[in-house]
Amino acid sequence: MRMSFGEALRVTVFGSSHGPEVGSVVEGLPPGLPVDLAQVQAALDRRRPVGRRLATRRAEPDRLVLTEGISDGRTTGGPVVGYVRNEDVRRGPYRPLEDVPRPGHADYPARERYDGLMDLSGGGIFSGRMTVGLVLAGALVRPYLTAKGVSVLAFTRSIHDHSVPETALHLPLPELEAASRQNELGAPDALAAQAMAQTIEEARRSGDSVGGIIEARAEGLPVGLGEPFFDPLEGSLAHALFAIPAIKGVEFGSGFSAAGRRGSENNDPYEWVGGELRTRTNHAGGILGGLATGMPLVLRVVVKPTSSIAREQDSVSLSRRTPERLVVTGRHDPCIVPRAVPVVEHVTGFVLADFLLRRGRA
Amino acid sequence: MRMSFGEALRVTVFGSSHGPEVGSVVEGLPPGLPVDLAQVQAALDRRRPVGRRLATRRAEPDRLVLTEGISDGRTTGGPVVGYVRNEDVRRGPYRPLEDVPRPGHADYPARERYDGLMDLSGGGIFSGRMTVGLVLAGALVRPYLTAKGVSVLAFTRSIHDHSVPETALHLPLPELEAASRQNELGAPDALAAQAMAQTIEEARRSGDSVGGIIEARAEGLPVGLGEPFFDPLEGSLAHALFAIPAIKGVEFGSGFSAAGRRGSENNDPYEWVGGELRTRTNHAGGILGGLATGMPLVLRVVVKPTSSIAREQDSVSLSRRTPERLVVTGRHDPCIVPRAVPVVEHVTGFVLADFLLRRGRA
Amino acid sequence: MRMSFGEALRVTVFGSSHGPEVGSVVEGLPPGLPVDLAQVQAALDRRRPVGRRLATRRAEPDRLVLTEGISDGRTTGGPVVGYVRNEDVRRGPYRPLEDVPRPGHADYPARERYDGLMDLSGGGIFSGRMTVGLVLAGALVRPYLTAKGVSVLAFTRSIHDHSVPETALHLPLPELEAASRQNELGAPDALAAQAMAQTIEEARRSGDSVGGIIEARAEGLPVGLGEPFFDPLEGSLAHALFAIPAIKGVEFGSGFSAAGRRGSENNDPYEWVGGELRTRTNHAGGILGGLATGMPLVLRVVVKPTSSIAREQDSVSLSRRTPERLVVTGRHDPCIVPRAVPVVEHVTGFVLADFLLRRGRA
Amino acid sequence: MRMSFGEALRVTVFGSSHGPEVGSVVEGLPPGLPVDLAQVQAALDRRRPVGRRLATRRAEPDRLVLTEGISDGRTTGGPVVGYVRNEDVRRGPYRPLEDVPRPGHADYPARERYDGLMDLSGGGIFSGRMTVGLVLAGALVRPYLTAKGVSVLAFTRSIHDHSVPETALHLPLPELEAASRQNELGAPDALAAQAMAQTIEEARRSGDSVGGIIEARAEGLPVGLGEPFFDPLEGSLAHALFAIPAIKGVEFGSGFSAAGRRGSENNDPYEWVGGELRTRTNHAGGILGGLATGMPLVLRVVVKPTSSIAREQDSVSLSRRTPERLVVTGRHDPCIVPRAVPVVEHVTGFVLADFLLRRGRA
Repeated sequence: MRMSFGEALRVTVFGSSHGPEVGSVVEGLPPGLPVDLAQVQAALDRRRPVGRRLATRRAEPDRLVLTEGISDGRTTGGPVVGYVRNEDVRRGPYRPLEDVPRPGHADYPARERYDGLMDLSGGGIFSGRMTVGLVLAGALVRPYLTAKGVSVLAFTRSIHDHSVPETALHLPLPELEAASRQNELGAPDALAAQAMAQTIEEARRSGDSVGGIIEARAEGLPVGLGEPFFDPLEGSLAHALFAIPAIKGVEFGSGFSAAGRRGSENNDPYEWVGGELRTRTNHAGGILGGLATGMPLVLRVVVKPTSSIAREQDSVSLSRRTPERLVVTGRHDPCIVPRAVPVVEHVTGFVLADFLLRRGRA
Repeated sequence: MRMSFGEALRVTVFGSSHGPEVGSVVEGLPPGLPVDLAQVQAALDRRRPVGRRLATRRAEPDRLVLTEGISDGRTTGGPVVGYVRNEDVRRGPYRPLEDVPRPGHADYPARERYDGLMDLSGGGIFSGRMTVGLVLAGALVRPYLTAKGVSVLAFTRSIHDHSVPETALHLPLPELEAASRQNELGAPDALAAQAMAQTIEEARRSGDSVGGIIEARAEGLPVGLGEPFFDPLEGSLAHALFAIPAIKGVEFGSGFSAAGRRGSENNDPYEWVGGELRTRTNHAGGILGGLATGMPLVLRVVVKPTSSIAREQDSVSLSRRTPERLVVTGRHDPCIVPRAVPVVEHVTGFVLADFLLRRGRA
Repeated sequence: MRMSFGEALRVTVFGSSHGPEVGSVVEGLPPGLPVDLAQVQAALDRRRPVGRRLATRRAEPDRLVLTEGISDGRTTGGPVVGYVRNEDVRRGPYRPLEDVPRPGHADYPARERYDGLMDLSGGGIFSGRMTVGLVLAGALVRPYLTAKGVSVLAFTRSIHDHSVPETALHLPLPELEAASRQNELGAPDALAAQAMAQTIEEARRSGDSVGGIIEARAEGLPVGLGEPFFDPLEGSLAHALFAIPAIKGVEFGSGFSAAGRRGSENNDPYEWVGGELRTRTNHAGGILGGLATGMPLVLRVVVKPTSSIAREQDSVSLSRRTPERLVVTGRHDPCIVPRAVPVVEHVTGFVLADFLLRRGRA
Repeated sequence: MRMSFGEALRVTVFGSSHGPEVGSVVEGLPPGLPVDLAQVQAALDRRRPVGRRLATRRAEPDRLVLTEGISDGRTTGGPVVGYVRNEDVRRGPYRPLEDVPRPGHADYPARERYDGLMDLSGGGIFSGRMTVGLVLAGALVRPYLTAKGVSVLAFTRSIHDHSVPETALHLPLPELEAASRQNELGAPDALAAQAMAQTIEEARRSGDSVGGIIEARAEGLPVGLGEPFFDPLEGSLAHALFAIPAIKGVEFGSGFSAAGRRGSENNDPYEWVGGELRTRTNHAGGILGGLATGMPLVLRVVVKPTSSIAREQDSVSLSRRTPERLVVTGRHDPCIVPRAVPVVEHVTGFVLADFLLRRGRA
């Protein structure tokens, strides 16, 4: 673990936010998978800043370089190495922070963990930019999922106090995808997206930030997918998803709301519909005993409001042991939820593909 | 992974609910740790049914047998093997269910996963009884945590619609522990506990069940504890916690409520208090960048309402493809939250001890 | 690692030589594999002392107990737990050794590693008796290998200065197996076996011991089996084989003798024979680039002479820092090579099955 | 596993022989270790071709690029990323081989493993060039070993029929190192080195190649270093060493020669010498029960003769199923033993450092 994740599939993330590059090594891709560079690039582009108004102005062309493991547009079966260069690296603005830790950032605990030796400019290895390697891995494995009949989608479920209305969530996956791609917010409802954009813009204007909730769904998983006890779908997905900075909670199906429900309400009754076995409801989020039930897998993660805000904040000098007022300069998103959507989607897809590849064993 | 978890410390769980025994092999315990058998037994007893009225009537004396790795009341440094026998095994009542899957249970996906060959009597390897091995591991490692100045506690935060009031949560950890041990519910508030007990009793009487939320806290963690990227405290804790059956969500600090907060509210400002660095609030739950901040670690898990209920439920015949009405017989808890409390506590402690042992490396 | 090995298949060994039992947990066996208890027991019996004259007189009935993972004579797909009880445990004779380490045993380094707390009676977790768990794992997986058309065999290649003649080694695998089962030595040549038996008997009479070489072969492996770089067949097999106490070297194909050969001699030229691709020689031992070539896999391990000898030996008192003369009492084999043969065979089979199960992924 | 190795320390190798670069990601280095770039570069240079006459003429400047994890000449504690570019890539000469597998190379099994999709130009991921990443990892960790008082050395023990005389092997480690650095062969004896050079030159002239044996030693290991059962020093070292292409055997201490020795000869008697505990002989190679005894660790690996030879060889056409005569063109070493010496040394050092870092846990 640490910089690597996965069993049959393995991703090892490398680089840092303000070093020369960020990327990953992806092992275990079956030989012969098609690699559509434009699609992989498009996946990376989805996690880039989402427009002048809503996001950071840092210029990140994120042009993908694949140096190994691809031949004639197909995976060779060997490890794939891919990265994007960090072309707009400015270390200056971050340096003064070292003695005055930014609230909400890893500055202070990382200083203790690494004896003060790690350059946390732009977050260093704690930066959201590290997720480039995750998206790359997920994008490479996408054609495998498609070939296996598995669709994976993530979308913005809420930002601050604006949520996608329940009714919009009952769309079939392809329509949900189409709807959520029609706005910068990644929310499958135009009105909600508009309200979210306004909230983000207000946060920006007031030098503040907002958080939100992302939902991911997967359909087409074979019944029984998963491994017992320490490798349930929930545990493995959660483990991987918490690698995404700013995520502070993960829930499956009815999740935390199950606490207030009775068993007779929360159990999903089985029924035969058109020759197919399904459950009338899906409070289980498509997972029972850690194994796929065949119903859509549904998970949600919470993304905390961006820690870097323009407002002056209370902090301290670590060396002088004095209170300090701190202003975090640099370029920051007032809301990273939309950019985290493709990361959540690709991490989810990666983990599911790993389980599918493990399953092939017998 | 699968039946094993941990890096410096490793637990491998074995057995099943209705086989001859359940237990675990625990590797990596430093030599010389004191083992107080009465305390380990007490930890196991905490996860036993909590009283005639509130829980299952299955008799489980859960008498611990330790066969390896202990000598003269101390760990030898070798693997410890411990188990309890399943003395009240009745396979009969479960057999007929095989063709009619119980809603909310792993019956159907497990049947697909294991080609119908696994005996899921009493849940088999999906049973909550497997958590005996987790409690054993956590109880063995407890003296190590104590020696390192780390305290870990879990308690019932809510059951169905009854929650422990906010005021009760501000107690120091030892008092919180004392309060939560004063009732069968594991809730640190007598009135709330009474209401919870009543709710559970009502659920039982109506042949139903209820869920709830468990909170775990840890104090005394060294600042910077954790590992980067794929081994943040959150990811590793979540991975291990999802091994506990019925858990469907995990959140840290302000968790899902962070979605509705602004950065200026959610960031925890630093301050020097009596020569010690702390944060004014603890929305981070003691974790930033996956590393311990030195503030109390706070996490919550949701426990779904027990899937086995006495009421008749809708299900199907898998072979005949017909709808069926199902009554789950056998002995079941209308609420497993109180029994899951010590499991959550010991899993949390185990994972933190693993990180502490990894940290010792340099 | 440590007490566990394997990826798709995993074995976790537990117990110790003079505790109540030794055994293992085996995960990842496909559901539905036939389990012939008599054959598994027979595999365990092959590693028992090989006769009054040649081996230890310790009585070890090694009656297998399987408590999980088997149903109606088939694997369920869940973890299998099996063990044998240690029925003839005598701790007395070993205790006095603690201050006077036995040459050739782990006594002294283990004392340092475990702060003197581990009971090394009979070797403790360093005992050859721990290999019961390995044989169990290998025996359980044998029907899977057979179903995949893979045969695995180990036999005694040499004991002290007596080797099986080259001519006997050219037999097809089934005949080699038959021949090597016709004597207690596990050597596929009656005359050599007789000489070996005499050498062992002489060693016993003179209070000494002898070592030897075991060869393992596997046929029917699919071409390309293996994983790149850190998981070549050689590396994984060697890793697992060194878990067998007393093994001090592993070589593949022409092994160490390749050092004295030229490339033109050591390269195995390809040829088509009867529509099948093979190599004229097999100096590669069936492995190139860590992957199976389709030719028989051939490996050899060296087993050092038993460290426990009846003769008085030079040692020291660790506490008094004085020289001491030591006599190791207890019951010991003057040669453990024949008993190690089935262990080598089953470890080899287990590792190959793990690779086969991993291969199924795509 | 696969492209990664290690537990507390982890190396992930990336790149391929004829892609743009080869290198590795190294995780787990403690923060603050000094990094002397010149020394790391010197380590890489040791595995480069060793002179016009003896080695390949391929130009490989192997200029190290370190892009992460180093700051002000010290490790930050984060992952280190390093690589060298492949500046002299010529794919042409290798392409025609695809249908006619080179004897002794991975061509044929890799074709099956990777469905013919992997470009094995220059060996691809099977190339000895991948070991650049191993040397990098070992060189980075060297200052840690030095700080812990551990010295590691590898040297050429034999090439073809010329061995370093026994007498030269009794030198203390620093003198052994000095002697083995005085010639291109890495052999600690001038006369033997001369004979080896002559043998290699003869092999070259006759279009052939030769193999040999490398010995590695480590001193200063703390008594008891190692982990039980599946992580003995031998098993972990062997696993890592077999990642080096062309290695076909590993032995420890007296190794295969122990097969012909009696227990009374092979056991190493303990003695107190000048207040220090040691053994009179060291047939155990410094390892008992998988744990370090405090005596020098001694291991040997066999390097097969280079598979690429200039002579015409017998092979086949895979597609036409005909016999073919094959001439391997390109630039090849007639003996890679001297170049493998630093790789063996650094892999050995890396694995030992991993064990030392794991040991720090309690």
